[in-house]
Amino acid sequence: MPRNVVDSIVRRIRDGAAPCVVGIDPSLERMPRAFRTSYDVDDGGLRAGAAAIADFSKIVVDAVHDLVPAVKLQSAYYEAWGVEGVAALAASVAYARQRGLAVILDAKRNDIAETAAAYAQAYLGKKGRAGALDVDLLTLTPYLGRDGLLPFFDASRENGKGVFVCVKTSNPGSADLQDLAAGGRPVYEHVAELLAPYAERDRGEEGYSWIGAVVGATFPESARRLRSKLPFSIFLTPGYGAQGADASALASFFNPDGLGALISASRSVTYPTDSEVDRLGLESAIRAHALAMTEAVRQIGPVSDRRARHT
Amino acid sequence: MPRNVVDSIVRRIRDGAAPCVVGIDPSLERMPRAFRTSYDVDDGGLRAGAAAIADFSKIVVDAVHDLVPAVKLQSAYYEAWGVEGVAALAASVAYARQRGLAVILDAKRNDIAETAAAYAQAYLGKKGRAGALDVDLLTLTPYLGRDGLLPFFDASRENGKGVFVCVKTSNPGSADLQDLAAGGRPVYEHVAELLAPYAERDRGEEGYSWIGAVVGATFPESARRLRSKLPFSIFLTPGYGAQGADASALASFFNPDGLGALISASRSVTYPTDSEVDRLGLESAIRAHALAMTEAVRQIGPVSDRRARHT
Repeated sequence: MPRNVVDSIVRRIRDGAAPCVVGIDPSLERMPRAFRTSYDVDDGGLRAGAAAIADFSKIVVDAVHDLVPAVKLQSAYYEAWGVEGVAALAASVAYARQRGLAVILDAKRNDIAETAAAYAQAYLGKKGRAGALDVDLLTLTPYLGRDGLLPFFDASRENGKGVFVCVKTSNPGSADLQDLAAGGRPVYEHVAELLAPYAERDRGEEGYSWIGAVVGATFPESARRLRSKLPFSIFLTPGYGAQGADASALASFFNPDGLGALISASRSVTYPTDSEVDRLGLESAIRAHALAMTEAVRQIGPVSDRRARHT
Repeated sequence: MPRNVVDSIVRRIRDGAAPCVVGIDPSLERMPRAFRTSYDVDDGGLRAGAAAIADFSKIVVDAVHDLVPAVKLQSAYYEAWGVEGVAALAASVAYARQRGLAVILDAKRNDIAETAAAYAQAYLGKKGRAGALDVDLLTLTPYLGRDGLLPFFDASRENGKGVFVCVKTSNPGSADLQDLAAGGRPVYEHVAELLAPYAERDRGEEGYSWIGAVVGATFPESARRLRSKLPFSIFLTPGYGAQGADASALASFFNPDGLGALISASRSVTYPTDSEVDRLGLESAIRAHALAMTEAVRQIGPVSDRRARHT
């Protein structure tokens, strides 16, 4: 069995890395004007657009590679540029891994049985052979149920990879289905209960599972309940920054050992307010934002207090 | 407002096309040995694998283009071959549309707000400009709630496209979350209730909405209840054939006007039992299977009886 990426991430955090993830959502509209216009993208050319998002991704990786254990690439913004965009995604993934970062692909894939296995093969590999667009961790959505998830768990075990299953997402609309009360508790707790036995079974040497959960930073009360239902899962926690959550609300996402969560910020870190910065200024601004975020997250009590072995 | 693809599909069915969809799930393992080995794919080369699935897709399109109004391409099997596979997907989509078929991309995309809009832009276009990998209809999953769906509805309206939202899927595991009872009815009925007002609002000239629903052929009782909750939505109904549903169970998926469902079969139509057929034999076998399926679906009472205007 290959060494699991989740073990590597946990060790990096024990060794002092902040339990944070920087998200790369390369939206041309949000990039600083001066950077965007250095690419000839306004004619809708896919090649120029894809080149711009690949370069933007590289800048973010260069700015944060020594500050966080992982980056989270949002697949939609690459797919928006078609085949050229997927090539930019592959190049960005390779560059981030080359710089020592674990790569989470935020693609929220989901399907059933053999089709789920095809997605798993694409991104997590199959029987030790790397995926065609090989990443370290992949986000999933659970609406289709257990037979849509197991092929991804199996591929993770075989190839040293991991997944984050959306349990309670950070957006206001997450209430529509995830909060429906079924049997006295919300649907998202049922998802956690479905995952729990697999997460207890599928664990690495550091005690944590490669079956993680997406739990939005905007819902600390939900996180408290989910923390006890999924003690072995790492929470990928977006919504810090742009979506309004601040560091003080994040303690409930962590275990008493100070581990178990990866706080994720994308737009608030990667998009400077100054639209006139050039390429170098962009990298400096991203680094400054990432430093501020990692420092803020470090201040959270349990994280800075203790990092014992999780049992 | 551009003419909507759902109007075109409804008109083709009124004019005599079977209310059927052939699914293209190009899995190398399932392809006839003689066909597969004509491509040098056993070394894991992505280019050869992508060429094989593109050719397989072309064969299916050639075999069924005059029998059904649409094909459904399963994105996972193309993504499994990385960038080369996505290029094969783009070529297969273009070929199917060139032969007059509407293309449903079964990609089950889902995300929130701006990110959902990026997916919509990729596949459905933006403000009249074609998507980078432009298809006619896209499947979605609803776990993230309303703000994950609205950007796709908007893009559909702007660009004459459509979506199918997974409501009750055909797999056994669909029970895990979709069947949970909340407020006296299953979660999937809540999804239908969430979609209903948008589907009533977003309708084309033929009375049907471009907001459709995935309702598995394996659950005819669920279909009966959903049919009354979503009178204006077209049901995309997989599970016919390989997953065990037969034509007699399908009447409840249709409206009294004989419209409102597209019965989908993939493996049972496209994979002949004879593993020694060559390229031409493969096309003949697929055509024979597709003819048998379309004839079986035509026998369903309401479909063959009347096709009045839906109001």
